[in-house]
Amino acid sequence: MSSSFGTLFRVVTFGESHGPAVGVVVDGMPPAIRVDVADLQRELDRRRPGQSALTTQRDEADRVEVLSGLFEGVTLGTPIAMMVRNQDTRPQDYEALREVFRPGHADYAWQQKYGVRDHRGGGRSSGRETVGRVAAGALAKLALATIGVSIVGGTVQVGDVVAAWRDWDEAERNPVRCPDPAAAIEMAQLIVIARDAKDSVGGVVEVVARGVPAGWGDPTMDRLDALLGADMLSIPSTRGVEIGDGFALAARRGSETNDVLEGGRYLSNHAGGISGGISNGADVVVRVAIRPASSIGQEQTATTTQGESTPLAIVGRHDPCICPRVVPVAEAMLALALMEAWLRQRALRGRDR
Amino acid sequence: MSSSFGTLFRVVTFGESHGPAVGVVVDGMPPAIRVDVADLQRELDRRRPGQSALTTQRDEADRVEVLSGLFEGVTLGTPIAMMVRNQDTRPQDYEALREVFRPGHADYAWQQKYGVRDHRGGGRSSGRETVGRVAAGALAKLALATIGVSIVGGTVQVGDVVAAWRDWDEAERNPVRCPDPAAAIEMAQLIVIARDAKDSVGGVVEVVARGVPAGWGDPTMDRLDALLGADMLSIPSTRGVEIGDGFALAARRGSETNDVLEGGRYLSNHAGGISGGISNGADVVVRVAIRPASSIGQEQTATTTQGESTPLAIVGRHDPCICPRVVPVAEAMLALALMEAWLRQRALRGRDR
Amino acid sequence: MSSSFGTLFRVVTFGESHGPAVGVVVDGMPPAIRVDVADLQRELDRRRPGQSALTTQRDEADRVEVLSGLFEGVTLGTPIAMMVRNQDTRPQDYEALREVFRPGHADYAWQQKYGVRDHRGGGRSSGRETVGRVAAGALAKLALATIGVSIVGGTVQVGDVVAAWRDWDEAERNPVRCPDPAAAIEMAQLIVIARDAKDSVGGVVEVVARGVPAGWGDPTMDRLDALLGADMLSIPSTRGVEIGDGFALAARRGSETNDVLEGGRYLSNHAGGISGGISNGADVVVRVAIRPASSIGQEQTATTTQGESTPLAIVGRHDPCICPRVVPVAEAMLALALMEAWLRQRALRGRDR
Amino acid sequence: MSSSFGTLFRVVTFGESHGPAVGVVVDGMPPAIRVDVADLQRELDRRRPGQSALTTQRDEADRVEVLSGLFEGVTLGTPIAMMVRNQDTRPQDYEALREVFRPGHADYAWQQKYGVRDHRGGGRSSGRETVGRVAAGALAKLALATIGVSIVGGTVQVGDVVAAWRDWDEAERNPVRCPDPAAAIEMAQLIVIARDAKDSVGGVVEVVARGVPAGWGDPTMDRLDALLGADMLSIPSTRGVEIGDGFALAARRGSETNDVLEGGRYLSNHAGGISGGISNGADVVVRVAIRPASSIGQEQTATTTQGESTPLAIVGRHDPCICPRVVPVAEAMLALALMEAWLRQRALRGRDR
Repeated sequence: MSSSFGTLFRVVTFGESHGPAVGVVVDGMPPAIRVDVADLQRELDRRRPGQSALTTQRDEADRVEVLSGLFEGVTLGTPIAMMVRNQDTRPQDYEALREVFRPGHADYAWQQKYGVRDHRGGGRSSGRETVGRVAAGALAKLALATIGVSIVGGTVQVGDVVAAWRDWDEAERNPVRCPDPAAAIEMAQLIVIARDAKDSVGGVVEVVARGVPAGWGDPTMDRLDALLGADMLSIPSTRGVEIGDGFALAARRGSETNDVLEGGRYLSNHAGGISGGISNGADVVVRVAIRPASSIGQEQTATTTQGESTPLAIVGRHDPCICPRVVPVAEAMLALALMEAWLRQRALRGRDR
Repeated sequence: MSSSFGTLFRVVTFGESHGPAVGVVVDGMPPAIRVDVADLQRELDRRRPGQSALTTQRDEADRVEVLSGLFEGVTLGTPIAMMVRNQDTRPQDYEALREVFRPGHADYAWQQKYGVRDHRGGGRSSGRETVGRVAAGALAKLALATIGVSIVGGTVQVGDVVAAWRDWDEAERNPVRCPDPAAAIEMAQLIVIARDAKDSVGGVVEVVARGVPAGWGDPTMDRLDALLGADMLSIPSTRGVEIGDGFALAARRGSETNDVLEGGRYLSNHAGGISGGISNGADVVVRVAIRPASSIGQEQTATTTQGESTPLAIVGRHDPCICPRVVPVAEAMLALALMEAWLRQRALRGRDR
Repeated sequence: MSSSFGTLFRVVTFGESHGPAVGVVVDGMPPAIRVDVADLQRELDRRRPGQSALTTQRDEADRVEVLSGLFEGVTLGTPIAMMVRNQDTRPQDYEALREVFRPGHADYAWQQKYGVRDHRGGGRSSGRETVGRVAAGALAKLALATIGVSIVGGTVQVGDVVAAWRDWDEAERNPVRCPDPAAAIEMAQLIVIARDAKDSVGGVVEVVARGVPAGWGDPTMDRLDALLGADMLSIPSTRGVEIGDGFALAARRGSETNDVLEGGRYLSNHAGGISGGISNGADVVVRVAIRPASSIGQEQTATTTQGESTPLAIVGRHDPCICPRVVPVAEAMLALALMEAWLRQRALRGRDR
Repeated sequence: MSSSFGTLFRVVTFGESHGPAVGVVVDGMPPAIRVDVADLQRELDRRRPGQSALTTQRDEADRVEVLSGLFEGVTLGTPIAMMVRNQDTRPQDYEALREVFRPGHADYAWQQKYGVRDHRGGGRSSGRETVGRVAAGALAKLALATIGVSIVGGTVQVGDVVAAWRDWDEAERNPVRCPDPAAAIEMAQLIVIARDAKDSVGGVVEVVARGVPAGWGDPTMDRLDALLGADMLSIPSTRGVEIGDGFALAARRGSETNDVLEGGRYLSNHAGGISGGISNGADVVVRVAIRPASSIGQEQTATTTQGESTPLAIVGRHDPCICPRVVPVAEAMLALALMEAWLRQRALRGRDR
């Protein structure tokens, strides 16, 4: 069950970084929704490695193959299985790591958990697992679009550079995927500096859903915030999530932050579109903290599986800042959570909205 | 399903703020664990209203009654139902709100969701729902204690006052539940100022689990971080959650933040005890952003159910800062997530740790 | 999780036979459905002991108390908790059984499973657990009635006496709940003979849902048949379930048993209203095999917890044939499965039917 | 969620009869279990078409490809995805059925459910979906074998021919998979007669698990019987399931059917290895009623999608009796249910048995 997300819109990813393939089964896609495989591929292309000088140079075409669930261009309502074969694997890069737990990585915790481990490129804990999430998210986006819900996102912080505004169209035009073009340039410089120092740098990704009707989510355990908390923190390398004004609210007063509704619209959106766990009709705004990537070329102190310390400089092809490639993943996860909330609301009320 | 948390350790809460009772059923408690009802009551007492001048003056004894699942002082392995009767309800305080959506509250979103609403004290969306969580968490704490896992917590920020250190024993000695006694005094002053201004103030709560063995959690969808993200953001009034160094990692480099393992122990804990979604043996550290309470006595602009604006000054008994009372709830939710992760790991490996 | 049924319409029962109370939480009841507590009580009265000379003489009024989820006579869409206090418990009847595993009962398997046991009246494995099911089923029946789905049921076999026809109104008029009044008399005689011989006798219960629209259920794992299989075989003392012509189909040809659809109606109903796992618009017909009750007054050979054989004649108050009291339970379980299927279909299609 | 079975051992199948592929993802396989792909293939070969003159002549090699979850011959504890490409599809055989609802099939109910349909060979409702179940079951069998649990099965009734005894080794030696070789000959004759009459015939399949320790399953909703009821009735063309003596118990007395435990062993097994929902250490015995296959060559009355009656003689390649090919599927499903129960018991008690 550990690789499943969602109940009504259930997504199960599979695959190791250097195994035969990665992929996903989406169980719960509503029927009769038009799906063009090119739409799925476009999302995967946004996630794939080698897009720019700022990302890893591993070369994966990431061509998606749909194995089931589509018929004559529309969904059947049955599970949609999608697969991407791994191609540019270099297991030899990892042979030296067979007996080593890398700092910052899951290697040690993994060994304690499973007692067995695919040491090649992180195996299942590789960011490559997110291929399946993005493919599933692409389906979710198509379904949500049928009722006018759309999703955008971008990198809003890298190191100490913070985006000052949000022009979401701009985000797709620069390699950092920053909605503030001036900040984007500074961010790119920071990433290059980190890369050249054989280091990595963290950041923050923001995703926004527009057109979400009021009424999705639940008041207690399955609050929409809670669904988002689970799905954002399930993305590798995330260390925090906040909704609307998030942690900044800790320093504020209620009189400043209660959103006022007037004429069916909120005059402000401190709550990030969610009141008491339920969408309130305003944009749903989520930010995710991304840690600096663990794989760096600088020499660090690692531990062998025998418990001895050993110096380690990680070779292989890695991202100095994963934010640009997390953006499509975070959008996908937002789409998955919204699909789940949408279908549950349909179950509750027996109507589309 | 919306009021359930967990799969193997499944908790279902029930009850409205001004209905007959609130409570919980815990389905999945392991058998043969000694439970003293006084242990459960002690946790509920930490959450109950009227503890100090800093909290709401609603007077609820919150006496817990165990309806099932215990026999001769030990758990049977069957569902444990626990109930607290509501006593000091004043529905008349809320009659004026029958046709009003309060700012910052879930009222409007709720109406859109369900089409019907218990307007008395927020009904199901009241913080009173957390009585069941705390009772369930008390059971989880008892179970976790049998393998040496313990949980502490406190308020680490109120407004712009931030705790400078962590003395968890200290936290239970001041009404703010702050682990830094000097900061506690400042925090209390801030809360009194907000209260006297008929306003409210936000904060941050931190909870820590000690003794968690390496290997709990999962590498993908059900990462331990994800379980914590869901369960913390399911607490009313939370707007963000972070693990370990959290959002601060966005501004850091990998060379600074990769925790180094030496002799089976981590030399630092930037990761907050979780590597790649799996506990790594270090303390699990979680912080939760708490928004200022929505119910304030100042006049605000509300909306009637007919869509017209109306001035509103909320009467009734409310908390100017809910952090002190969120502490036991956040501890409880941490305990629930850890129980779930523990039982799943037992399922995976067929042994206790 | 072991005491939960359903996902969207989730029912969690709690309580031991001789503990403080038995009850249920129903999480997923749609909002704005009118509920009269008298409707719930009526169903419980059909299940309660002491209804006739054919049933156990334990005297339980089984008054239901609703703890949450109702407001001004309608459902809120929040969890509905219902509780019945145990009154006529006679734990002393069971003291002699503390160290004995009764033949035919779960005692031995239970001890192997949990390592601890409430020996009083079977504890959690008592038929008394079904109080919560019946209360939940009463809610489900009210919800289903809003779209024209109704449920009937009765005892169609006791020992070798088989009902020759189905007059469901008749079923409520005789103590066996048999839809064939002539057979009902023979069945009652058989039950009296068994009782007087300090023995028990088995039977078959049939339940039928009318008005189920085509399209509920799923084609693979969650076939409507599968939901029914799980929920019927979760009733204590059931040993088999069949849909439509069931086991009789093993001896037939396809040319005889393919139901023909004409003008939107099926001309026959060998399939029991389910084609390929999906309701087809015909009556849903389910039969459940009921074993003879395990508790009998005749002397049998039991085993002590030390593994030694010991003669045992069970005292206490027991049903010589549980079929009449299983009828409302099986109806309730059918209602629960249909609620689940209905809500899932609403999620899939976004409309009521 | 409709194509998922299980919680801790979660199986999700995918694929349409005439789509690109069928397959399965198994999420929850314990780590470090040795898996030889030949073991998986052997089970698929038992299910595949064209094994004998008694089965459909569709020619599918059904070569399984493992896409993830195995590393150096052992399981990683991560999802295991397995795929079989569809090869001998003849969509043209089905073109005439695009606008026709076949008698006895799910076509009409499916259209009502989804509003869109893959008419080719039943699409998702084809028995071909069970390829994934058998592959998953093969993994489950390997895992169960590590603790001494084994599964056997066979056809015990075809039409009115009933197997008189159980020699499970014999079952694999005749094309009917009957454990009684004399009955096997009669059964084969009956199948040939049905086939030559362009008709089909029903039957009963029995599966048995040996070595199941006492303590698996649960006392209420998730009784082991209930898990088995759901998983057996999720197999296409099943119409009933019974445990142990099943429906025959309806005609018996308690004094005849209470199994007596002596020296830690049951002297009889009327209960089919399950007491009060929990395994009791005896063989788990399950029988499944199989309806005659719906696809027959005789002319029948079908309905067009416009609601008009039309004569129909189904061409294409079909099984006159599906029992022989259901045997490996029912064994697989028994294995899946037992895996689920085993892992849950490990979660409950924290030890292997």
